[in-house]
Parts: sequence; structure tokens; C-alpha cells
Amino acid sequence: MTPFTFDKLVIFGVGLIGGSLARALRERAGVAPGGRIVGVGRTRASAERARELGVVDDVASLDDDRELAAALAGADLILLAAPVAQTRPLLERILPFLGEHTIVTDAGSTKSDVVAAARAALGARAAQFVPGHPIAGRESSGVEAALPDLYVGRNVVLCPLPENRPADVARIDALWRVTGALVSTMSHEQHDRVFASVSHLPHLLSFALVERILSAPDAALKFSFAAGGFRDFTRIAASSPEMWRDVCLANRDALVDELDGYLAVLGQLRTAVLASDGATLEAVFSRSREARTQWQERGGLAPK
Amino acid sequence: MTPFTFDKLVIFGVGLIGGSLARALRERAGVAPGGRIVGVGRTRASAERARELGVVDDVASLDDDRELAAALAGADLILLAAPVAQTRPLLERILPFLGEHTIVTDAGSTKSDVVAAARAALGARAAQFVPGHPIAGRESSGVEAALPDLYVGRNVVLCPLPENRPADVARIDALWRVTGALVSTMSHEQHDRVFASVSHLPHLLSFALVERILSAPDAALKFSFAAGGFRDFTRIAASSPEMWRDVCLANRDALVDELDGYLAVLGQLRTAVLASDGATLEAVFSRSREARTQWQERGGLAPK
Repeated sequence: MTPFTFDKLVIFGVGLIGGSLARALRERAGVAPGGRIVGVGRTRASAERARELGVVDDVASLDDDRELAAALAGADLILLAAPVAQTRPLLERILPFLGEHTIVTDAGSTKSDVVAAARAALGARAAQFVPGHPIAGRESSGVEAALPDLYVGRNVVLCPLPENRPADVARIDALWRVTGALVSTMSHEQHDRVFASVSHLPHLLSFALVERILSAPDAALKFSFAAGGFRDFTRIAASSPEMWRDVCLANRDALVDELDGYLAVLGQLRTAVLASDGATLEAVFSRSREARTQWQERGGLAPK
Repeated sequence: MTPFTFDKLVIFGVGLIGGSLARALRERAGVAPGGRIVGVGRTRASAERARELGVVDDVASLDDDRELAAALAGADLILLAAPVAQTRPLLERILPFLGEHTIVTDAGSTKSDVVAAARAALGARAAQFVPGHPIAGRESSGVEAALPDLYVGRNVVLCPLPENRPADVARIDALWRVTGALVSTMSHEQHDRVFASVSHLPHLLSFALVERILSAPDAALKFSFAAGGFRDFTRIAASSPEMWRDVCLANRDALVDELDGYLAVLGQLRTAVLASDGATLEAVFSRSREARTQWQERGGLAPK
């Protein structure tokens, strides 16, 4: 395990993701004597809950210049764990108080838009910003749902900028490894293509299925006979509408590319069904089952 | 509970579905003194396993006229629990030995094709055939996976024919109620539209997503970052390719109608994403989440 220490870590948005990182650092790495974790919320009150739970040591309000300046003074690291759409305004708010040696990272589930926001907000000081994405979630959210082992065995993707200092990237890498995560690196473009494919598109498709059923005059009858296949397929249709609206908008181009590729596959299957072409259907279904089964056998992912 | 008794029940295909019915009748209704459950397989050996497990009392081979005649003589009820595509050949094989008072039912997951197969195979004697569909499955299959409580709280849909005798329909209704199932009645056309929507289409969509990822040059990378959303969405892509090929072909028209309605919804979402129309996306996602959450709260369905 790469050693990781810090004197001051500031987390913007202490919910499931930020709170779990704080709890992981406390329980797995130990916080050095004098080391502090500071939670910043839109208001002071929204971060207080995290202090009451012992997740952070100190809190500050985003709206109060004095509190924010005090929170950021001498910070080693800043983690943005607020909704992705807030990246640019948050960074603009942080910039006047950003120390020369402070490293900033984030936990957003899209990366090209975050990189653009960081460049727009920070200019040349975007060199201090190392984009990241921990792939971890639970059905519940909020700081109450934070777990010290949320990241154990989970992937964290870093998308370093060409202007990042290698030492800063290594430090963010070490931060996540301490939590038990598996850290990978790729470009932000590749990140967004990968997650459009395996995460964003499935969410869109799942929401769309429920919408399709709702639009039918006999929707109630249909829901009353929905069983296990529907249950699994639509579990992610219970996800946050605001979050997924933002993800779809932030990763628009990769998502539409992926959707178009998917529509081409559906078109082939539609043709095969209409032509009663059982051989094509069975070939596609067999390949899919084999790949899905292998994925599960290689470890898949169990809920936490 | 409606009383249900029988002297002889013959099950064609003693796997998960047929075996669970046999076990439910033994444990929940009790089998009357002298009452027998007979399992028929493609070969004698394939049904023997069910007898070894105590699921059936006697076995017969489909290929042996004498055994089949003996199995069907004096049968109160016949359940077809083999793949749907075998309905017509099975009924043609049964017809010469079919008693005047024997009621035949099935467990196929599509119904219009089963009705057509029954009319083609049985002619006027299709009046003895009461189409049915127990909505129950498990990830495992085969008689070893059969459970006496598989049907407790599950839906069973009957699609009676106009020529069925009401007393015969009532008897099949009573058969399933004894297992703890909730029995409903609808036309075979309505059945096929409902299940195209909540079951067949989701399976097609799930297989298609895995196929889409497989077609990408970076498929391995994508699978390696697939997480919980992918896991839930594609769980049904590990289903039997042969079974789902047959379902897609058997329910072709309703499935294509449902797919086309779904493609229209996807087209609207694609337009909204391209136009960065967050309000439309959020409205659709919110409606879907609310409907999915209400479905879950009304009982949803837990795996067995």
C-alpha cells in the first residue's frame, strides 16, 4: 500500500461519495495527528450533519468568504463531490482561495465536461486539477449511507490532464488506493465512451421502458403482470432524474453515438424477428449470454 | 381454498415448472389415496430423475406407444411444460390416447401460437385444451430446481377458448390456486401484448445491449468497467437463447409492435439529448422513477 498522509482535506459535498472517502481515510489510513477533514456545503447547516456523524472534523459554508478562505487555507487536497453541473461554479468560487500547492480532484461520472469546466474556471491553474471518477454507488444516498468500505474492490478512473504534475497525479492515485479501490488511468474521451456504453445508455434504456409502458392505455394491467425480468431491467429507472438528466446532457455526444450503435443492433434484431429468422436471434442471444456469464464469473459486481 | 383433487395428473416435461407444480400438489393439497403423478419425457430416462427425486410417481417415454397409452389412460389432467415450440407435435402425439374427459393445459409463456397449435393438432377436441401461463421462473432450471412454493403469490394467467367447458376452466383455475398462485383470465391476444411489453421486449433489449458492447473494438475495456447498472440491466441476458428465440418467434407481431413503440420513445429521448433539452429528459425520468417506485411498493417481486 502506497503511504498516504495529509494535513487538510476539504470535501465539497459530503454525501455518499465524499462521506465514504472521509470514512475510508479515517478507518483505513488513519488521519495524521493534526490532520483535518473539512466538509463544505451550500450552507453551513448542510455540512453540519456530516460533523455530527463524525465524518468530518470541521465544516464551512460555501456562501461565506471568511469561512471558505479558512477552510481552504493550507489544504493539501480538495475533492469535489457535488453534482457534475456544479463543477464550474464551484471551481470559480474556489479559485480566489486556492493555494499554490493544493491539488483539486473530483468524483463526477462524466469527464469531458468536467475538464472543459475546469479549464474555463481555472485557466492555467487547471494544471492543479486531476479529474477522477470513483465507480461506486448504492441505492441509498446522502452522508448517512456513507461506508468506510464503499470503495474496496471498486474501480476508480483518473483522467489526468497533459498539464498535471506527475507527482500530483501520483498523490490522487495513492489517495484512492488507500480506500481499497482499483485505480486506472485513461483519457477523458475514452472514459466518456466507456461509461456511455456500460452505464449511461442502460439508464436511458431503462427509463425509456417504463415510459413506454406508462404511455399504453392498459399500463396498470401491464405493471400488474411485470415480474423478475422487468424488476431487474428497470431497477436503475428508480435512479435520480436530476442526476441522470445532467449525465445525459454532459455526455451528450458519446451517449448519442452509443445509442445509435444500439439502435443499429435493435434494427437487426427487428428484421430477424419479422423474418422469423431464428438462427440470427439464437446466435445473438447465445453470444450475449456467454459474454454476460463470463463477466459475472470474472467477478461481476455485488451490491454493497 | 377451492378443493382440488385428482386421480391422475400427467406432466409432459418435468423440469422447473412441471416439477414445481407436482411438488406443490404433494405438499399443499396432498395427493389423494391412489392419486398418481406421471412424468413423461422425450425418453424414459429423462423423466426418471424426477421419479428418483420423488417428484413424480411414475414415468413414461414419449416414444413408446404402450407406455404413453398407459400413462394417459384415465388421466384427469395433462400439463404441457415443455418448450412452447413443441406444443403442436406433443398434442398430435397425445391425441390418439386422449380420453374424452381429460383436460389438457399448458405452461407456455406465449399464448396465441399455443392456441393456434392446439387448434391445428386437436381440431374440435381443442375444446379440451385450456391455455395457461404461470409467471414464475428462477435463475436455475431443471427438476432439481423445482420448489413446492414456487407459485406462492405468483400470477397465473388463463386464456380460455370460447369452446372450453366452463367446468374445465374452473378445474384448471382450482389446480393453480392450490399452489398459492393468483389466477387471472384474459384473451390470448391481450396476454401476448402484456408480456411482449413487460417481459419479451426487456429480454430482447438486454441481449441487444451486450451484443452492442461486444461489437466494439474496446469491448474488453468496457466490460471491465461495467458496474451495478450493467449488472441489473443485463441479468436477463444470461437467459436461455433457445427459449427466448422461440418466444420472439412465437410472439412476433406483438413483440414488433411493442419494439416500435419503444423505438418511438427512444427517438424522443435522442432528440432531447441532442437538443440539450434537460426539461424533457427530467420529466420522462421522473415519471419513470415514480412508476417504478410505486410498482416496487405495491409488492414488486422478490427472487425465489
